[in-house]
Amino acid sequence: MMEQTTIALLSGGVDSATAACIALEDGQKVIGLSFDYGQRHLKELQAAKDLAKDLNLEDHLTIKINLSSWGGSSLTDSSQTIPTKGIQKNIIPNTYVPGRNTIFIAIGLSLAEARGANRIALGINAMDYSGYPDCRPDYLETYQELAKLSSKVGREGKGISLWAPLLNWKKTKIFKEALRLKVPIEKTWSCYQGGIKPCGKCDSCRIRDQALEIIGRKDLCSQNI
Amino acid sequence: MMEQTTIALLSGGVDSATAACIALEDGQKVIGLSFDYGQRHLKELQAAKDLAKDLNLEDHLTIKINLSSWGGSSLTDSSQTIPTKGIQKNIIPNTYVPGRNTIFIAIGLSLAEARGANRIALGINAMDYSGYPDCRPDYLETYQELAKLSSKVGREGKGISLWAPLLNWKKTKIFKEALRLKVPIEKTWSCYQGGIKPCGKCDSCRIRDQALEIIGRKDLCSQNI
Repeated sequence: MMEQTTIALLSGGVDSATAACIALEDGQKVIGLSFDYGQRHLKELQAAKDLAKDLNLEDHLTIKINLSSWGGSSLTDSSQTIPTKGIQKNIIPNTYVPGRNTIFIAIGLSLAEARGANRIALGINAMDYSGYPDCRPDYLETYQELAKLSSKVGREGKGISLWAPLLNWKKTKIFKEALRLKVPIEKTWSCYQGGIKPCGKCDSCRIRDQALEIIGRKDLCSQNI
Repeated sequence: MMEQTTIALLSGGVDSATAACIALEDGQKVIGLSFDYGQRHLKELQAAKDLAKDLNLEDHLTIKINLSSWGGSSLTDSSQTIPTKGIQKNIIPNTYVPGRNTIFIAIGLSLAEARGANRIALGINAMDYSGYPDCRPDYLETYQELAKLSSKVGREGKGISLWAPLLNWKKTKIFKEALRLKVPIEKTWSCYQGGIKPCGKCDSCRIRDQALEIIGRKDLCSQNI
Protein backbone atom coordinates (compact mmCIF):
# COMPACT_ATOMS: atom_id res chain seq x y z
CA MET A 1 0.00 0.00 0.00
CA MET A 2 1.25 3.45 -0.89
CA GLU A 3 2.11 5.54 2.12
CA GLN A 4 -0.53 8.17 2.73
CA THR A 5 -0.09 11.51 4.46
CA THR A 6 -2.48 13.05 6.95
CA ILE A 7 -2.49 16.63 8.18
CA ALA A 8 -3.69 16.42 11.80
CA LEU A 9 -5.09 19.62 13.30
CA LEU A 10 -3.79 19.65 16.86
CA SER A 11 -5.45 21.89 19.43
CA GLY A 12 -3.53 20.49 22.36
CA GLY A 13 -6.66 18.74 23.60
CA VAL A 14 -7.42 15.05 23.83
CA ASP A 15 -9.80 14.80 20.86
CA SER A 16 -7.39 15.97 18.18
CA ALA A 17 -4.51 13.99 19.73
CA THR A 18 -6.67 10.86 19.62
CA ALA A 19 -7.60 11.48 15.96
CA ALA A 20 -3.89 11.87 15.16
CA CYS A 21 -3.11 8.60 16.96
CA ILE A 22 -5.80 6.73 15.02
CA ALA A 23 -4.16 7.97 11.81
CA LEU A 24 -0.75 6.83 13.07
CA GLU A 25 -2.11 3.40 13.98
CA ASP A 26 -3.59 3.27 10.49
CA GLY A 27 -0.04 3.59 9.10
CA GLN A 28 -0.42 7.14 7.85
CA LYS A 29 2.43 9.63 7.87
CA VAL A 30 1.14 12.44 10.11
CA ILE A 31 1.99 16.15 9.99
CA GLY A 32 0.61 18.19 12.89
CA LEU A 33 -0.85 21.66 12.39
CA SER A 34 -1.68 24.09 15.21
CA PHE A 35 -2.82 27.69 15.36
CA ASP A 36 -1.67 30.64 17.35
CA TYR A 37 -4.90 32.53 16.72
CA GLY A 38 -4.89 35.03 19.53
CA GLN A 39 -6.46 32.68 22.06
CA ARG A 40 -6.47 33.64 25.74
CA HIS A 41 -3.46 31.58 26.61
CA LEU A 42 -0.68 29.58 25.00
CA LYS A 43 -0.90 26.53 27.27
CA GLU A 44 -2.82 24.60 24.63
CA LEU A 45 -0.18 25.45 22.03
CA GLN A 46 2.58 24.20 24.28
CA ALA A 47 0.53 21.05 24.83
CA ALA A 48 0.18 20.60 21.06
CA LYS A 49 3.96 20.95 20.64
CA ASP A 50 4.65 18.46 23.43
CA LEU A 51 2.14 15.99 21.96
CA ALA A 52 3.57 16.26 18.45
CA LYS A 53 7.00 15.45 19.88
CA ASP A 54 5.71 12.69 22.08
CA LEU A 55 3.80 11.04 19.23
CA ASN A 56 6.84 11.38 17.02
CA LEU A 57 4.97 13.12 14.21
CA GLU A 58 6.66 13.66 10.85
CA ASP A 59 6.48 17.41 11.30
CA HIS A 60 4.53 20.00 13.28
CA LEU A 61 3.71 23.51 12.11
CA THR A 62 2.22 26.32 14.18
CA ILE A 63 0.57 29.03 12.10
CA LYS A 64 -0.11 32.54 13.36
CA ILE A 65 -3.46 34.07 12.43
CA ASN A 66 -4.68 36.79 14.72
CA LEU A 67 -8.44 36.40 15.21
CA SER A 68 -8.34 38.54 18.33
CA SER A 69 -8.12 41.62 16.07
CA TRP A 70 -11.91 41.44 15.92
CA GLY A 71 -12.79 39.26 18.91
CA GLY A 72 -16.39 38.14 18.82
CA SER A 73 -15.69 35.37 21.36
CA SER A 74 -14.73 35.03 25.01
CA LEU A 75 -11.77 32.95 23.81
CA THR A 76 -10.30 35.78 21.75
CA ASP A 77 -11.56 38.80 23.70
CA SER A 78 -10.49 38.89 27.32
CA SER A 79 -13.16 41.47 28.16
CA GLN A 80 -15.77 38.70 27.77
CA THR A 81 -16.27 36.19 30.58
CA ILE A 82 -15.95 32.44 29.99
CA PRO A 83 -19.16 30.73 31.19
CA THR A 84 -18.77 28.38 34.17
CA LYS A 85 -22.36 27.41 34.92
CA GLY A 86 -22.50 24.38 32.64
CA ILE A 87 -23.75 23.79 29.09
CA GLN A 88 -27.19 25.14 28.27
CA LYS A 89 -29.19 23.23 25.71
CA ASN A 90 -29.75 24.92 22.33
CA ILE A 91 -27.65 27.93 23.22
CA ILE A 92 -24.34 28.48 21.45
CA PRO A 93 -22.04 29.80 24.20
CA ASN A 94 -19.75 32.82 23.83
CA THR A 95 -16.73 30.50 23.62
CA TYR A 96 -17.75 29.97 20.00
CA VAL A 97 -15.13 31.71 17.83
CA PRO A 98 -16.65 33.02 14.58
CA GLY A 99 -15.16 31.27 11.58
CA ARG A 100 -12.50 29.39 13.55
CA ASN A 101 -12.93 25.89 12.20
CA THR A 102 -13.63 27.17 8.69
CA ILE A 103 -10.31 29.04 8.75
CA PHE A 104 -8.34 26.17 10.33
CA ILE A 105 -9.64 23.60 7.86
CA ALA A 106 -8.98 25.98 4.95
CA ILE A 107 -5.36 26.36 6.07
CA GLY A 108 -5.17 22.59 6.50
CA LEU A 109 -6.39 22.16 2.91
CA SER A 110 -3.73 24.56 1.67
CA LEU A 111 -0.96 22.70 3.49
CA ALA A 112 -2.35 19.32 2.40
CA GLU A 113 -2.39 20.29 -1.26
CA ALA A 114 1.11 21.79 -1.13
CA ARG A 115 2.53 18.72 0.65
CA GLY A 116 0.56 16.10 -1.32
CA ALA A 117 -1.42 14.91 1.72
CA ASN A 118 -4.70 13.15 1.11
CA ARG A 119 -6.41 13.50 4.45
CA ILE A 120 -7.07 16.07 7.16
CA ALA A 121 -7.66 14.58 10.60
CA LEU A 122 -10.04 16.57 12.78
CA GLY A 123 -10.86 16.05 16.44
CA ILE A 124 -14.34 17.52 15.90
CA ASN A 125 -17.02 15.92 18.02
CA ALA A 126 -20.76 16.54 17.90
CA MET A 127 -21.94 14.45 20.85
CA ASP A 128 -20.58 15.78 24.13
CA TYR A 129 -19.80 19.28 22.95
CA SER A 130 -20.82 22.92 23.34
CA GLY A 131 -23.13 23.06 20.32
CA TYR A 132 -20.82 25.05 18.05
CA PRO A 133 -22.26 25.32 14.52
CA ASP A 134 -18.92 24.40 12.96
CA CYS A 135 -18.69 21.02 14.73
CA ARG A 136 -21.81 19.46 13.24
CA PRO A 137 -22.10 16.71 10.63
CA ASP A 138 -23.92 18.85 8.00
CA TYR A 139 -21.15 21.44 8.24
CA LEU A 140 -18.45 18.85 7.65
CA GLU A 141 -20.30 17.22 4.74
CA THR A 142 -20.63 20.57 2.99
CA TYR A 143 -16.98 21.42 3.67
CA GLN A 144 -16.02 18.09 2.09
CA GLU A 145 -17.86 19.14 -1.06
CA LEU A 146 -16.12 22.53 -0.99
CA ALA A 147 -12.72 20.88 -0.52
CA LYS A 148 -13.26 19.00 -3.77
CA LEU A 149 -14.24 22.14 -5.71
CA SER A 150 -11.65 24.44 -4.16
CA SER A 151 -8.50 22.61 -5.11
CA LYS A 152 -6.56 21.62 -8.18
CA VAL A 153 -6.24 18.06 -6.84
CA GLY A 154 -9.95 17.94 -6.05
CA ARG A 155 -10.87 19.04 -9.59
CA GLU A 156 -8.57 16.34 -10.90
CA GLY A 157 -10.46 13.72 -8.86
CA LYS A 158 -7.77 13.13 -6.21
CA GLY A 159 -9.60 14.76 -3.36
CA ILE A 160 -8.44 15.58 0.16
CA SER A 161 -10.68 13.91 2.66
CA LEU A 162 -11.90 15.66 5.81
CA TRP A 163 -11.73 12.87 8.29
CA ALA A 164 -13.37 13.29 11.70
CA PRO A 165 -13.30 9.85 13.29
CA LEU A 166 -14.69 11.06 16.64
CA LEU A 167 -17.62 13.00 15.19
CA ASN A 168 -20.31 10.73 16.60
CA TRP A 169 -18.49 9.33 19.62
CA LYS A 170 -19.48 9.96 23.21
CA LYS A 171 -16.67 11.58 25.21
CA THR A 172 -16.32 8.38 27.24
CA LYS A 173 -15.58 6.42 24.07
CA ILE A 174 -12.99 9.01 23.06
CA PHE A 175 -11.17 8.65 26.39
CA LYS A 176 -11.29 4.84 26.21
CA GLU A 177 -9.80 4.97 22.73
CA ALA A 178 -7.20 7.52 23.87
CA LEU A 179 -6.18 5.19 26.69
CA ARG A 180 -5.97 2.20 24.35
CA LEU A 181 -3.80 4.21 21.95
CA LYS A 182 -1.62 5.42 24.81
CA VAL A 183 -2.30 9.09 24.12
CA PRO A 184 -0.45 10.93 26.92
CA ILE A 185 -3.70 12.35 28.31
CA GLU A 186 -1.91 14.05 31.18
CA LYS A 187 -0.10 16.22 28.62
CA THR A 188 -3.27 17.40 26.86
CA TRP A 189 -4.88 20.72 27.78
CA SER A 190 -8.64 21.24 27.47
CA CYS A 191 -9.34 24.17 29.80
CA TYR A 192 -10.47 27.46 28.24
CA GLN A 193 -8.62 29.36 30.94
CA GLY A 194 -4.85 29.54 31.02
CA GLY A 195 -4.27 28.98 34.72
CA ILE A 196 -1.49 26.92 36.26
CA LYS A 197 -4.01 24.11 36.62
CA PRO A 198 -7.24 23.58 34.64
CA CYS A 199 -10.17 25.50 36.18
CA GLY A 200 -12.53 22.51 36.36
CA LYS A 201 -15.52 24.80 35.78
CA CYS A 202 -15.55 25.83 32.11
CA ASP A 203 -17.56 23.75 29.61
CA SER A 204 -14.43 22.13 28.29
CA CYS A 205 -13.23 21.02 31.76
CA ARG A 206 -16.75 19.86 32.69
CA ILE A 207 -17.16 17.70 29.56
CA ARG A 208 -13.72 16.18 30.07
CA ASP A 209 -14.03 15.52 33.78
CA GLN A 210 -17.51 14.04 33.54
CA ALA A 211 -16.36 11.47 30.97
CA LEU A 212 -13.22 10.59 32.94
CA GLU A 213 -15.24 10.03 36.09
CA ILE A 214 -17.66 7.73 34.28
CA ILE A 215 -14.85 5.55 32.97
CA GLY A 216 -13.22 5.44 36.39
CA ARG A 217 -10.20 7.60 35.66
CA LYS A 218 -10.74 10.39 38.15
CA ASP A 219 -6.96 10.52 38.44
CA LEU A 220 -6.86 12.26 35.05
CA CYS A 221 -9.54 14.84 35.92
CA SER A 222 -8.63 18.54 35.85
CA GLN A 223 -8.31 18.87 39.61
CA ASN A 224 -5.88 15.96 39.76
CA ILE A 225 -3.33 16.78 37.09
CA MET B 1 -33.58 51.16 4.98
CA MET B 2 -31.29 49.81 7.70
CA GLU B 3 -27.63 50.45 6.98
CA GLN B 4 -25.91 47.27 5.88
CA THR B 5 -22.24 46.43 6.25
CA THR B 6 -20.07 44.73 3.65
CA ILE B 7 -16.63 43.24 4.17
CA ALA B 8 -14.79 43.84 0.88
CA LEU B 9 -11.79 41.62 0.21
CA LEU B 10 -9.22 43.95 -1.39
CA SER B 11 -6.31 42.46 -3.32
CA GLY B 12 -5.08 45.78 -4.65
CA GLY B 13 -6.33 44.87 -8.13
CA VAL B 14 -9.11 46.42 -10.17
CA ASP B 15 -11.69 43.63 -9.72
CA SER B 16 -11.96 43.76 -5.95
CA ALA B 17 -11.81 47.59 -5.96
CA THR B 18 -14.70 47.64 -8.42
CA ALA B 19 -16.74 45.23 -6.30
CA ALA B 20 -16.12 47.47 -3.27
CA CYS B 21 -17.25 50.52 -5.24
CA ILE B 22 -20.47 48.80 -6.32
CA ALA B 23 -21.19 48.11 -2.64
CA LEU B 24 -20.48 51.76 -1.80
CA GLU B 25 -22.76 52.98 -4.58
CA ASP B 26 -25.39 50.62 -3.19
CA GLY B 27 -25.21 52.55 0.11
CA GLN B 28 -23.44 49.85 2.08
CA LYS B 29 -20.92 50.62 4.80
CA VAL B 30 -17.72 48.98 3.54
CA ILE B 31 -14.84 47.53 5.57
CA GLY B 32 -11.81 46.50 3.50
CA LEU B 33 -9.87 43.32 4.26
CA SER B 34 -6.48 42.45 2.75
CA PHE B 35 -3.96 39.69 3.31
CA ASP B 36 -0.25 39.69 3.79
CA TYR B 37 0.05 36.01 2.91
CA GLY B 38 3.69 35.73 1.96
CA GLN B 39 3.12 36.82 -1.63
CA ARG B 40 6.17 37.69 -3.76
CA HIS B 41 5.84 41.39 -3.25
CA LEU B 42 3.99 43.93 -1.17
CA LYS B 43 3.09 46.29 -4.01
CA GLU B 44 -0.45 44.93 -4.17
CA LEU B 45 -0.84 45.43 -0.41
CA GLN B 46 0.26 49.03 -0.69
CA ALA B 47 -2.19 49.43 -3.57
CA ALA B 48 -4.97 47.97 -1.38
CA LYS B 49 -4.14 50.43 1.40
CA ASP B 50 -4.09 53.37 -1.02
CA LEU B 51 -7.40 52.29 -2.54
CA ALA B 52 -9.07 51.87 0.86
CA LYS B 53 -8.02 55.42 1.74
CA ASP B 54 -8.99 56.80 -1.65
CA LEU B 55 -12.43 55.19 -1.52
CA ASN B 56 -12.88 56.44 2.03
CA LEU B 57 -13.78 53.03 3.42
CA GLU B 58 -15.11 52.73 6.96
CA ASP B 59 -12.06 50.71 7.98
CA HIS B 60 -9.32 48.58 6.40
CA LEU B 61 -7.64 45.60 8.01
CA THR B 62 -4.58 43.74 6.75
CA ILE B 63 -4.23 40.24 8.16
CA LYS B 64 -0.97 38.28 8.20
CA ILE B 65 -1.18 34.60 7.32
CA ASN B 66 2.02 33.10 6.02
CA LEU B 67 1.18 30.69 3.20
CA SER B 68 4.75 30.78 1.96
CA SER B 69 5.69 28.40 4.81
CA TRP B 70 4.62 25.61 2.47
CA GLY B 71 4.65 27.31 -0.95
CA GLY B 72 2.94 25.20 -3.56
CA SER B 73 2.63 28.20 -5.91
CA SER B 74 4.88 30.48 -7.91
CA LEU B 75 3.25 33.38 -6.05
CA THR B 76 4.41 32.14 -2.64
CA ASP B 77 7.59 30.29 -3.62
CA SER B 78 10.18 32.42 -5.36
CA SER B 79 12.02 29.34 -6.63
CA GLN B 80 9.13 28.75 -9.06
CA THR B 81 8.89 30.84 -12.24
CA ILE B 82 5.81 32.89 -13.07
CA PRO B 83 4.55 31.89 -16.54
CA THR B 84 4.76 34.59 -19.23
CA LYS B 85 3.70 32.74 -22.38
CA GLY B 86 -0.03 33.42 -22.05
CA ILE B 87 -2.97 31.45 -20.64
CA GLN B 88 -3.24 27.84 -21.73
CA LYS B 89 -6.74 26.40 -21.99
CA ASN B 90 -7.72 23.78 -19.38
CA ILE B 91 -4.43 24.04 -17.52
CA ILE B 92 -4.40 25.54 -14.04
CA PRO B 93 -1.17 27.58 -13.96
CA ASN B 94 1.37 27.50 -11.12
CA THR B 95 0.19 30.93 -9.98
CA TYR B 96 -2.71 29.09 -8.36
CA VAL B 97 -2.18 29.27 -4.58
CA PRO B 98 -3.58 26.18 -2.81
CA GLY B 99 -6.44 27.10 -0.52
CA ARG B 100 -6.00 30.84 -0.91
CA ASN B 101 -9.56 31.94 -1.58
CA THR B 102 -10.96 29.38 0.85
CA ILE B 103 -8.78 30.85 3.61
CA PHE B 104 -9.48 34.47 2.67
CA ILE B 105 -13.25 33.98 2.55
CA ALA B 106 -13.15 32.06 5.86
CA ILE B 107 -11.34 34.98 7.50
CA GLY B 108 -13.85 37.35 5.89
CA LEU B 109 -16.69 35.31 7.41
CA SER B 110 -15.07 35.51 10.83
CA LEU B 111 -14.70 39.28 10.63
CA ALA B 112 -18.21 39.68 9.20
CA GLU B 113 -19.79 37.71 12.03
CA ALA B 114 -17.81 39.55 14.70
CA ARG B 115 -18.66 42.97 13.23
CA GLY B 116 -22.27 42.19 12.32
CA ALA B 117 -21.71 42.54 8.56
CA ASN B 118 -24.14 40.81 6.26
CA ARG B 119 -22.18 40.62 3.03
CA ILE B 120 -18.71 39.75 1.78
CA ALA B 121 -17.80 41.43 -1.49
CA LEU B 122 -15.48 39.40 -3.72
CA GLY B 123 -13.75 40.46 -6.92
CA ILE B 124 -13.78 36.87 -8.18
CA ASN B 125 -14.26 36.54 -11.91
CA ALA B 126 -14.73 33.37 -13.94
CA MET B 127 -14.69 34.78 -17.47
CA ASP B 128 -11.33 36.30 -18.35
CA TYR B 129 -9.29 34.52 -15.71
CA SER B 130 -6.58 31.92 -15.23
CA GLY B 131 -8.88 28.97 -14.59
CA TYR B 132 -8.31 28.75 -10.83
CA PRO B 133 -10.64 26.17 -9.22
CA ASP B 134 -11.55 28.58 -6.43
CA CYS B 135 -12.88 31.26 -8.78
CA ARG B 136 -15.69 29.22 -10.31
CA PRO B 137 -19.45 29.51 -9.76
CA ASP B 138 -19.92 25.98 -8.31
CA TYR B 139 -17.20 26.72 -5.75
CA LEU B 140 -18.90 29.92 -4.64
CA GLU B 141 -22.35 28.32 -4.46
CA THR B 142 -21.02 25.58 -2.19
CA TYR B 143 -19.15 28.10 -0.04
CA GLN B 144 -22.41 30.03 0.37
CA GLU B 145 -24.01 26.88 1.75
CA LEU B 146 -21.04 26.35 4.08
CA ALA B 147 -21.22 29.98 5.27
CA LYS B 148 -24.77 29.35 6.43
CA LEU B 149 -23.89 26.17 8.33
CA SER B 150 -20.59 27.43 9.78
CA SER B 151 -21.85 30.42 11.70
CA LYS B 152 -24.08 31.24 14.62
CA VAL B 153 -25.82 33.94 12.55
CA GLY B 154 -26.25 31.53 9.64
CA ARG B 155 -27.84 28.89 11.88
CA GLU B 156 -30.17 31.59 13.18
CA GLY B 157 -31.28 32.38 9.64
CA LYS B 158 -29.44 35.72 9.29
CA GLY B 159 -26.84 34.56 6.82
CA ILE B 160 -23.77 36.33 5.50
CA SER B 161 -23.97 36.52 1.74
CA LEU B 162 -20.96 35.86 -0.48
CA TRP B 163 -21.43 38.47 -3.14
CA ALA B 164 -19.36 38.29 -6.32
CA PRO B 165 -20.92 40.85 -8.66
CA LEU B 166 -18.23 40.42 -11.35
CA LEU B 167 -18.35 36.63 -11.45
CA ASN B 168 -19.77 36.41 -14.97
CA TRP B 169 -18.50 39.68 -16.41
CA LYS B 170 -16.00 39.97 -19.24
CA LYS B 171 -12.92 41.95 -18.21
CA THR B 172 -13.94 44.72 -20.59
CA LYS B 173 -17.23 45.13 -18.72
CA ILE B 174 -15.34 45.27 -15.42
CA PHE B 175 -13.12 48.10 -16.68
CA LYS B 176 -16.09 50.01 -18.10
CA GLU B 177 -17.84 49.73 -14.74
CA ALA B 178 -14.64 50.70 -12.91
CA LEU B 179 -14.38 53.82 -15.08
CA ARG B 180 -18.03 54.72 -14.50
CA LEU B 181 -17.55 54.32 -10.74
CA LYS B 182 -14.35 56.38 -10.87
CA VAL B 183 -12.21 53.61 -9.42
CA PRO B 184 -8.66 55.04 -9.47
CA ILE B 185 -7.46 52.38 -11.90
CA GLU B 186 -3.99 53.87 -12.08
CA LYS B 187 -3.57 53.06 -8.38
CA THR B 188 -4.51 49.38 -8.73
CA TRP B 189 -1.83 46.71 -9.09
CA SER B 190 -2.48 43.51 -11.05
CA CYS B 191 1.02 42.26 -11.94
CA TYR B 192 2.23 39.02 -10.34
CA GLN B 193 5.77 40.41 -10.29
CA GLY B 194 6.80 43.16 -7.92
CA GLY B 195 8.83 45.30 -10.29
CA ILE B 196 8.90 49.08 -10.36
CA LYS B 197 6.45 48.86 -13.27
CA PRO B 198 4.08 45.98 -14.13
CA CYS B 199 5.81 43.35 -16.30
CA GLY B 200 3.16 43.29 -19.05
CA LYS B 201 3.84 39.59 -19.64
CA CYS B 202 2.29 37.60 -16.78
CA ASP B 203 -1.28 36.30 -17.13
CA SER B 204 -2.61 39.01 -14.89
CA CYS B 205 -1.00 41.83 -16.91
CA ARG B 206 -2.06 40.19 -20.18
CA ILE B 207 -5.73 39.88 -19.15
CA ARG B 208 -5.76 43.47 -17.91
CA ASP B 209 -4.01 45.02 -20.88
CA GLN B 210 -6.05 43.14 -23.47
CA ALA B 211 -9.30 44.42 -21.98
CA LEU B 212 -8.03 48.00 -21.68
CA GLU B 213 -6.91 47.99 -25.31
CA ILE B 214 -10.32 46.75 -26.47
CA ILE B 215 -12.13 49.55 -24.65
CA GLY B 216 -9.69 52.13 -26.01
CA ARG B 217 -7.87 52.91 -22.79
CA LYS B 218 -4.34 51.93 -23.74
CA ASP B 219 -3.21 54.81 -21.52
CA LEU B 220 -4.02 52.63 -18.48
CA CYS B 221 -2.14 49.54 -19.77
CA SER B 222 0.74 48.17 -17.74
CA GLN B 223 3.44 49.67 -19.95
CA ASN B 224 1.90 53.14 -19.67
CA ILE B 225 1.43 53.58 -15.94
